[in-house]
Amino acid sequence: MTSRSDNNLIVEPVARLIEEFGKLPGIGPKTASRLTFFLLRAEEEQSRALAEAIQAMREQVTLCTRCFNITVGEICPVCASPTRDQTKICVVEEPLDVLAIERTGAYRGLYHVLHGHIAPLEGTYREDLKIDELLARVRGEPVDEVILATNPNTEGEATAFLLLKDLAPLGVRVTRLSRGLPTGGDLEWADPDTLGSALEGRREL
Amino acid sequence: MTSRSDNNLIVEPVARLIEEFGKLPGIGPKTASRLTFFLLRAEEEQSRALAEAIQAMREQVTLCTRCFNITVGEICPVCASPTRDQTKICVVEEPLDVLAIERTGAYRGLYHVLHGHIAPLEGTYREDLKIDELLARVRGEPVDEVILATNPNTEGEATAFLLLKDLAPLGVRVTRLSRGLPTGGDLEWADPDTLGSALEGRREL
Repeated sequence: MTSRSDNNLIVEPVARLIEEFGKLPGIGPKTASRLTFFLLRAEEEQSRALAEAIQAMREQVTLCTRCFNITVGEICPVCASPTRDQTKICVVEEPLDVLAIERTGAYRGLYHVLHGHIAPLEGTYREDLKIDELLARVRGEPVDEVILATNPNTEGEATAFLLLKDLAPLGVRVTRLSRGLPTGGDLEWADPDTLGSALEGRREL
Repeated sequence: MTSRSDNNLIVEPVARLIEEFGKLPGIGPKTASRLTFFLLRAEEEQSRALAEAIQAMREQVTLCTRCFNITVGEICPVCASPTRDQTKICVVEEPLDVLAIERTGAYRGLYHVLHGHIAPLEGTYREDLKIDELLARVRGEPVDEVILATNPNTEGEATAFLLLKDLAPLGVRVTRLSRGLPTGGDLEWADPDTLGSALEGRREL
């Protein structure tokens, strides 16, 4: 919707908002322009609420000092809960992964959010992740199992491998989420890697 | 990404921003969640710039008191320009339409933005549009042609028809953008309406 030649046609505050929306992932210039003109026509209240929500989030949301999941305050609700199993730590890459696992209802232990994965080509190294913090927890808390739930892709596997090396000397049980066919999937359409993992991980019935 | 059951998992400021993003057109819950978590990880500066751009736009942008295009201040740059042809007014539905026409470089007259089209089913009536303001301009300014550039769809046509009825008694020339095959289009793929318009509007070579 906007191009260099529009610079003198679109007034500065509008052009600026189009530009800021356009910096968000998956928002191209057309969508940025559409969102801007939508807010221009919407009730003033809606713009205000959006702007305030953005600022409030950045001001209020912090990382849990124990598991590094996002929270408000010092400790996240999972870490603060007396009913969670204190002997298990599930290690994930991102806060959204915690949500995904919580949604299964199948896990009652604690979490540890790494905030990324090892990816030297993207400039993410070991020291950028909350790995030392994890090791300190394993040493200091009554943990008997660390579940590595990094993503089942190259970076996630590399990160899990590195963690395994670090955790092995601590004498804790280290497990990894199983790989196999997705529920509801079709064997015919499974990619060879997934089908290979499903064969390798087959279980006695 | 978010569902009712996430209410106790996502901290309030994050949930609130996801909700506010989700109110924007074309932004579903998944995209809203993605944008929120992006801002959570991005530099604080980026959130601040976005929030400020939203507020600045709503505070600074006004409608030109003459043509009702969006602007900063009283009068928009087109209306303020001494080089624009003061005898022509191009009537459009939305501010974005002004941009589209300016981009052609083929028009040097003035504009009038209606801010919508007649659509009783959507609750938009004659009095919701800047029609009386247009008639006042035609009466008071040295206008000799009004170009109806409302959209070439049902609502745009209905709006143009209504404007024609209102403008006819004022003795001004009223024109409408021509309809026909789009440049670069393929006759074989043209819809019957467009092809019909192209036949009807055929010109002597």
